[in-house]
Amino acid sequence: MNKKEFVKAFAPATVANVCCGFDVLGFALEQPGDEVWALKTHEPGIVISAIEGITGLSADPEENVIGVVAQKMLTDLQVEHGLELQLHKGMPVGSGLGSSAASSAAAAFAVNEVLGQPFTTAELVTYAMEGERKASGSAHADNVAPSLLGGFVLVRDYEPLDLVPLGVPAALYCTIVYPQIELKTSLARSILKKEIPLKKSIRQWGNLAALMAGLLRADYGLIGRSLHDEIFEPERSVLIPLFKQAKEAALSSGALGCGISGSGPSIFALSASEETAEQVKVAFEKVYAESGIALKTYVSQVPEQGARLVEQSILQTAQA
Amino acid sequence: MNKKEFVKAFAPATVANVCCGFDVLGFALEQPGDEVWALKTHEPGIVISAIEGITGLSADPEENVIGVVAQKMLTDLQVEHGLELQLHKGMPVGSGLGSSAASSAAAAFAVNEVLGQPFTTAELVTYAMEGERKASGSAHADNVAPSLLGGFVLVRDYEPLDLVPLGVPAALYCTIVYPQIELKTSLARSILKKEIPLKKSIRQWGNLAALMAGLLRADYGLIGRSLHDEIFEPERSVLIPLFKQAKEAALSSGALGCGISGSGPSIFALSASEETAEQVKVAFEKVYAESGIALKTYVSQVPEQGARLVEQSILQTAQA
Repeated sequence: MNKKEFVKAFAPATVANVCCGFDVLGFALEQPGDEVWALKTHEPGIVISAIEGITGLSADPEENVIGVVAQKMLTDLQVEHGLELQLHKGMPVGSGLGSSAASSAAAAFAVNEVLGQPFTTAELVTYAMEGERKASGSAHADNVAPSLLGGFVLVRDYEPLDLVPLGVPAALYCTIVYPQIELKTSLARSILKKEIPLKKSIRQWGNLAALMAGLLRADYGLIGRSLHDEIFEPERSVLIPLFKQAKEAALSSGALGCGISGSGPSIFALSASEETAEQVKVAFEKVYAESGIALKTYVSQVPEQGARLVEQSILQTAQA
Repeated sequence: MNKKEFVKAFAPATVANVCCGFDVLGFALEQPGDEVWALKTHEPGIVISAIEGITGLSADPEENVIGVVAQKMLTDLQVEHGLELQLHKGMPVGSGLGSSAASSAAAAFAVNEVLGQPFTTAELVTYAMEGERKASGSAHADNVAPSLLGGFVLVRDYEPLDLVPLGVPAALYCTIVYPQIELKTSLARSILKKEIPLKKSIRQWGNLAALMAGLLRADYGLIGRSLHDEIFEPERSVLIPLFKQAKEAALSSGALGCGISGSGPSIFALSASEETAEQVKVAFEKVYAESGIALKTYVSQVPEQGARLVEQSILQTAQA
């Protein structure tokens, strides 16, 4: 009898930066997201046997983030068996919604389950960060941490990694519009200045500190007053067609705040009810209606939970 | 019968900046602080009839911050009577402990009481800020707000003023050492760079955001991990003799964190118990023991309450 354990895990898209929390803050969405299937195999090594929902991604386990994440986990555990992995991409790549992070987080979660949960969630973040290192050259945590932990997560420091899960006010909904233009994270990062004016920096950390208080106290008014970014948004938003109009439309529709998701081109808006979030979606669509730009839009609660088990089973097959 | 209402109010010293919260965060001490006496007079105008506890402060109501604050309050209310004021300085000037703020806050509080509480506490902050404008040329709120409101207060924005009172974890104690050297705020500000490196700024706001979470959740470990300042402390601490040794001594004695109070020269340390705060005081005194520098030290809980009424009465005197 071959006993193969099979696990399917989902990890959601995430919004990093959140206006005033550049490089330190992110939150999870309910959807979209990626699924990773993991099966324990007798043979050592990792095989990626299928990639669905997208074309052009490498199935080489040393090139695909799910393989990189899984390999590091197996190596650290010194297990002798191997893994067969499948990736189902349920979200767009290059959208600013943490696509590589969702794959990495789903892989870390699935592999941990199939191995019998040897790792803590915090440890899974460090493994998923290896996927980010592969994807972008930098092991950022501001997408993988909320994708794994859910809600809002603050990354206080990296050495050592110090994550502060913040939870989420119950009525907080997010609207995403993804104008399907190509925008490389590396380009969006390259236009950032290395020095920033002290005055703007002070305003930024005042807003971020207030956003923390707003989130922890479910003070929606304070959340709204704090969602500003005078440092990065002016530089980055010029790369996103109709950004200014989309932001104005979101705020006019009752959103608490609106900004660039990660390094874009997706735009996020936070609202204090699902109804408002749906109105913001309509407003976003109207802004882009005659632009000729293909769109994806999402309305999602900001969930308490991040990555989760979708399916698991113990497969028994006849002995060869 | 002349009916004169008499009020005596106390407002405490404050610690602004708090390592990572430059220009946006401050907290109150239990003591030291200033007292302001206010008496309603039939004659219009303001008279400062006594200044105790200090020499060299002007009693001209247009020059002394308590007169400036009181005059603005009277003008805005369009009252016809006047005020007689007295100031009792209970704390050192130029110490980095918000001396002008304590006087301004005590004046605003006392005058509001003697006038029958026409103003909200938030409005009192804006009046006390006029004292800060007089004292330093800039209407900062990061000392007057905690001096009036107590606990920790975040100043999110000035236009309009947006204060976020944060309260305070119950076991938080502060130790202050004031090495009595002269250090002008203007000098301490002049050495600040106008541009700061993006990387350091990101670390700063990560720490400040985490400090918010630590304060709001009474997570003393997180408070301790967040109390860092890599931007201003390296530049400013060179103006404070034995700063590095004092900080090391505080941390070795169990303090959660240690930094410059305001623009110095006072040094503050936060601890999670009164016992530790007392040990930090001994450690501070040891560091400066052979330096020949005169010292003042204070150990104080970080109180929930700021400015408060000390005494009030209705005086009745025989008619002339």
